[in-house]
Amino acid sequence: MNTRFLDACWGKQVDRTPVWLMRQAGRYLPEYMAVRSKCTFLELCKTPELAAQVTLQPVDILGVDAAILFSDILTPVEPMGMKLDFVPGPVFENPVRSMADVEKLRIPCMEQDVPYVLETLRILRRELAKKVPLIGFGGAPFTLACYMVEGKGSKDFAQIKRMMYTAPDVYAALMEKITTMSVEYLNAQIAAGAQVIQIFDTWGGILSPADYRRYVLPYSTRLISALNRIQTPVIHFVKGSGTMLDTVREAGGDVMGLDWHVSLAAARNSLGPAMAVQGNLDPTVLFGTQAIIEREVSRVLEENAGRPGFIFNLGHGILPTVPAENARFMVECVHRLSQS
Amino acid sequence: MNTRFLDACWGKQVDRTPVWLMRQAGRYLPEYMAVRSKCTFLELCKTPELAAQVTLQPVDILGVDAAILFSDILTPVEPMGMKLDFVPGPVFENPVRSMADVEKLRIPCMEQDVPYVLETLRILRRELAKKVPLIGFGGAPFTLACYMVEGKGSKDFAQIKRMMYTAPDVYAALMEKITTMSVEYLNAQIAAGAQVIQIFDTWGGILSPADYRRYVLPYSTRLISALNRIQTPVIHFVKGSGTMLDTVREAGGDVMGLDWHVSLAAARNSLGPAMAVQGNLDPTVLFGTQAIIEREVSRVLEENAGRPGFIFNLGHGILPTVPAENARFMVECVHRLSQS
Repeated sequence: MNTRFLDACWGKQVDRTPVWLMRQAGRYLPEYMAVRSKCTFLELCKTPELAAQVTLQPVDILGVDAAILFSDILTPVEPMGMKLDFVPGPVFENPVRSMADVEKLRIPCMEQDVPYVLETLRILRRELAKKVPLIGFGGAPFTLACYMVEGKGSKDFAQIKRMMYTAPDVYAALMEKITTMSVEYLNAQIAAGAQVIQIFDTWGGILSPADYRRYVLPYSTRLISALNRIQTPVIHFVKGSGTMLDTVREAGGDVMGLDWHVSLAAARNSLGPAMAVQGNLDPTVLFGTQAIIEREVSRVLEENAGRPGFIFNLGHGILPTVPAENARFMVECVHRLSQS
Repeated sequence: MNTRFLDACWGKQVDRTPVWLMRQAGRYLPEYMAVRSKCTFLELCKTPELAAQVTLQPVDILGVDAAILFSDILTPVEPMGMKLDFVPGPVFENPVRSMADVEKLRIPCMEQDVPYVLETLRILRRELAKKVPLIGFGGAPFTLACYMVEGKGSKDFAQIKRMMYTAPDVYAALMEKITTMSVEYLNAQIAAGAQVIQIFDTWGGILSPADYRRYVLPYSTRLISALNRIQTPVIHFVKGSGTMLDTVREAGGDVMGLDWHVSLAAARNSLGPAMAVQGNLDPTVLFGTQAIIEREVSRVLEENAGRPGFIFNLGHGILPTVPAENARFMVECVHRLSQS
């Protein structure tokens, strides 16, 4: 068992910097497309054998140090009573806009409502036994609320912010309910075999630091503190949080995910040695030549300056049109250049 | 003449905090829509009497302390040889992708190619003589390059980054040409009467701090240092730059624009008293109640803590569906709460 990734999550010294890629099971891999061509995205998420199969692909093809459950952050939102479609972006037919809408939402029973997620994790733990650790994940309450209130992707998130500013009781009730669901969902993933949990707050960075503190931090803090973390480190990734790392760290978590907008050196200096970090290569660097990829991997490693508690990753998900060979080369560079 | 805004640009003490709003002449104003309903957006930009008319509207309606030329950052790009359309976002029919494409671009002769911009400024200086100062503006070279290479809006800016990483000579030649054009364009605006210049780098924040330094900073620095700034302060607004303010300030400029993702207090502490700043209310706050608007205006003013060299603004353009009354109330709050 390659424990480099788990060791780094706990801040321990490692022989080489561990590396994985957000969305590493995905469209840029021909092997993924071969599976995906036979079913819809949601069918793939809901069929444990297939979800497990695509989860495992990048472990062998890229040589990454961790596997991450193939699923979508909105999977547990659907059984709350929200009809979900992908066109290809996620769309909810009936967005949440009123207290009546919030009251209608139910807390799913995980073993009954998302059995495929838990079964996928069980299969993966068996398959990965002698390979690499398994990451489970979920959306942060605020990011799930953004999708549930906007109903689809948004440019300025006017609906969710309007709710925050003009109907704070509705907003709070919604966030409470999502947080309760998320605690149960992620603890169920841990019980089913997830060895690390990553929380994706894709939209936490759309707020001012003051609004993040007021409207998001209490819920993310409650979520993280309610997880069974004794043996399971938590990675907290708030995209666009480079201007408020000190606030985000108050939510807890063992590893802070960083996007590429922040200098890794500056972030580590500001967070101090007790907080492990994960990141933060610009995903578009993988469109570059091998010389550019090696230069940029090397720059990120130099910014980390050998500090323990570092996991190499992209600053956001790998892009669908990246050549798989470039992703493989990036992983190889990280291992080669970080060898102690 | 209300000189509050000019005084604040130069870091002088003022009686009340000056305030204006990015995109203050725009769709949220019924008076603007009345003019706009009779012509296309480009026709409005190219008809000096109409462009001047909508520029003046918010001065009286909102009571702001500055007027900003009504135009588009892509106006001077069209006569470089790029056919421009709005659908409603900007689209270039033939995006720049090769050295041959760059070589075909010409540097416009401003008085011949964009006479309407200069004529609009001349009209406005006469009309505004006893009112408020007049702001001219242009896009930063990188932001113009993003539109010219992508051809339209983009989510991950893969085309421009691919050019940076795989064809650095093409990228550099393009940026040189755009910078040369921008120097001439903005100096022509100053000669025609613009009393302050704002440079919009809407997309500078899509890069890592290291890439910003390598691929953007040299061109923005050259642009700013080549402007006739003896009597004309320059506001440099790089959206998403909160994680690299120290790098962006190296470009020069008298005022740094801030978006709402950064704490104004933290930014001012880090930049020091010699650098004036402008910002940084989240534009969606204007969807809130008056109580919320007043609370948030008050918070921003408190973060500034009475330091001179502060201009109140939104952290990005006002949104098209904001009630005009809320914008007016915001301006009133800034003046009332900042009274010395």
